[in-house]
Amino acid sequence: MLKASECYKIIEEEISSIIFNEEPAGLYNPIRYILSIGGKRVRPCLTLLANNLFQDDYSPAIFPALATEIFHNFTLLHDDIMDNAATRRNKQTVHTKWNPNAAILSGDAMMIFAYDVLGKTAPDVFPKIFSLFNKTALEVCEGQQYDMEFEQRSDVTIQEYLEMIRLKTAVLLAASLAIGAIAAHASTAAIDQLYQFGLYTGLAFQLQDDYLDVFAAPDEFGKNIGGDILANKKTYLMISALNAGKPELVKKLNQWIDKKEFIPEKKIAAVTNIYRELEVEKKTKMLSDDYFNQGLEFLEKINVPKARKKELREFVFQLMTRAR
Amino acid sequence: MLKASECYKIIEEEISSIIFNEEPAGLYNPIRYILSIGGKRVRPCLTLLANNLFQDDYSPAIFPALATEIFHNFTLLHDDIMDNAATRRNKQTVHTKWNPNAAILSGDAMMIFAYDVLGKTAPDVFPKIFSLFNKTALEVCEGQQYDMEFEQRSDVTIQEYLEMIRLKTAVLLAASLAIGAIAAHASTAAIDQLYQFGLYTGLAFQLQDDYLDVFAAPDEFGKNIGGDILANKKTYLMISALNAGKPELVKKLNQWIDKKEFIPEKKIAAVTNIYRELEVEKKTKMLSDDYFNQGLEFLEKINVPKARKKELREFVFQLMTRAR
Repeated sequence: MLKASECYKIIEEEISSIIFNEEPAGLYNPIRYILSIGGKRVRPCLTLLANNLFQDDYSPAIFPALATEIFHNFTLLHDDIMDNAATRRNKQTVHTKWNPNAAILSGDAMMIFAYDVLGKTAPDVFPKIFSLFNKTALEVCEGQQYDMEFEQRSDVTIQEYLEMIRLKTAVLLAASLAIGAIAAHASTAAIDQLYQFGLYTGLAFQLQDDYLDVFAAPDEFGKNIGGDILANKKTYLMISALNAGKPELVKKLNQWIDKKEFIPEKKIAAVTNIYRELEVEKKTKMLSDDYFNQGLEFLEKINVPKARKKELREFVFQLMTRAR
Repeated sequence: MLKASECYKIIEEEISSIIFNEEPAGLYNPIRYILSIGGKRVRPCLTLLANNLFQDDYSPAIFPALATEIFHNFTLLHDDIMDNAATRRNKQTVHTKWNPNAAILSGDAMMIFAYDVLGKTAPDVFPKIFSLFNKTALEVCEGQQYDMEFEQRSDVTIQEYLEMIRLKTAVLLAASLAIGAIAAHASTAAIDQLYQFGLYTGLAFQLQDDYLDVFAAPDEFGKNIGGDILANKKTYLMISALNAGKPELVKKLNQWIDKKEFIPEKKIAAVTNIYRELEVEKKTKMLSDDYFNQGLEFLEKINVPKARKKELREFVFQLMTRAR
């Protein structure tokens, strides 16, 4: 049986063995670059581990796992242009290291390449995987669209926010798991249970990410603490604070949001204090845990021996407890 | 048998019957827009007509034809961002009417949608079509990359230019025809002959496009005359002129290329005169005709009754003689 701790290495090796055309280097170098600067390979690991619930040989899941990871990295590449992000994983983003046009075009090529890799999936399971992949990919675009629109709005509701993170983050994790199950010819019930497990876990992860952006110890979190606050991001914390029914604190919060000039540390400290006062950090942590537990219930239901679920369970617990 | 003149209407009807999600409107409206502002639907028409060489029922070719057209429009959408083009088909481009981020993201969604439509192809021919579609799509990206790189270079050779237009333009026309044949279960020989027919015809079209940009009567050409000259585009005309071995005229040409301020009409007139003096317009016309005839030879070879080829033949002659 595949160990959770082995997945990362398997995926890294598979990715580093991909051969792209040499020329035009301006098209393929950015793709090599973004695929080489890492990340935790969460999605392809989920695909392998889900596949491994039903069979020991996880090889039928490799190509769809890689396709999902390549697709995910393509979305990061294009999202970073749209979000005007200078760094990712502590490295320059592609549009900064090259230029926006290179990032657009090599992103496009990357998406096509993801489909090409997906096409190597065994023909008997391909149509179902292809269909879920397409549906999910479109949903991820919808999520990114909502995320961008929300930046311009001050009246985003909690419900809208949860729908946005479902689309932008959770469905791809859910599909990664479901695809692993499809590649193992699992039952429709099991495929659906894995999908739901991924969906709730994905919501839990994103809420935790919102939380950690503010409340993590600086060295346990990959990004800069308070980045969401400085960017006025409509996170769960922010929306909850704006909806907490405390006009005085809302007024204070809006003053910080509207301020054009400020000392970053001061804004982060002030907004963090408002969050604490309103206890939105507790609320966020609770909802995240709640989703995580709901997800686990779906994992429990899957009709395979408990021992087979151990690695997948361990994998998501690791993701949930360590800073991501 | 399908008439060349009927194809456009069939494709228009199919495209206008596509239903996209209503929300998020910011994602789907740009897609509806670019698909509605037309174009001549050359690629899907080629797919239907190629299919119709082998059978009367062209319905198996519809989904791949639509996928190719949607993919083509996606490339226009992203190319227009990269080329900073304000108008296309006399309408505002998506990144102008909305904004660059909207154009990036709705382009991405459009490509995914193209794959989704392609997935409706009959399963027995799908793998072969999918594989050619992916190969071609990557080549189109390579062509766009070379096209962008050539703008920064002054030493582009004729050979490099022809390879660039092969990738950027010709392979998608070639694949459109080949895909129609695959969907009709045509022989490998026939598929390949249609591909070669499309490849040479595509090169001929692009060379003619270069020619018409300078020498068309203004009302028979959809774009503004001299646009390539103003943009210092490394067209076949320009490269030929720079390589004509007339140092004096090359010097003059380079002066116009390097000029930062000029009256557009004057630059167009001066460069056009240099082209005429060097007879590069004749050379371009000759090479275009030569490729067109080489393409037709492949069409002749295809082993179906001559009468069946009439409509496809008529279609490419129309494209070649009328301004595009």
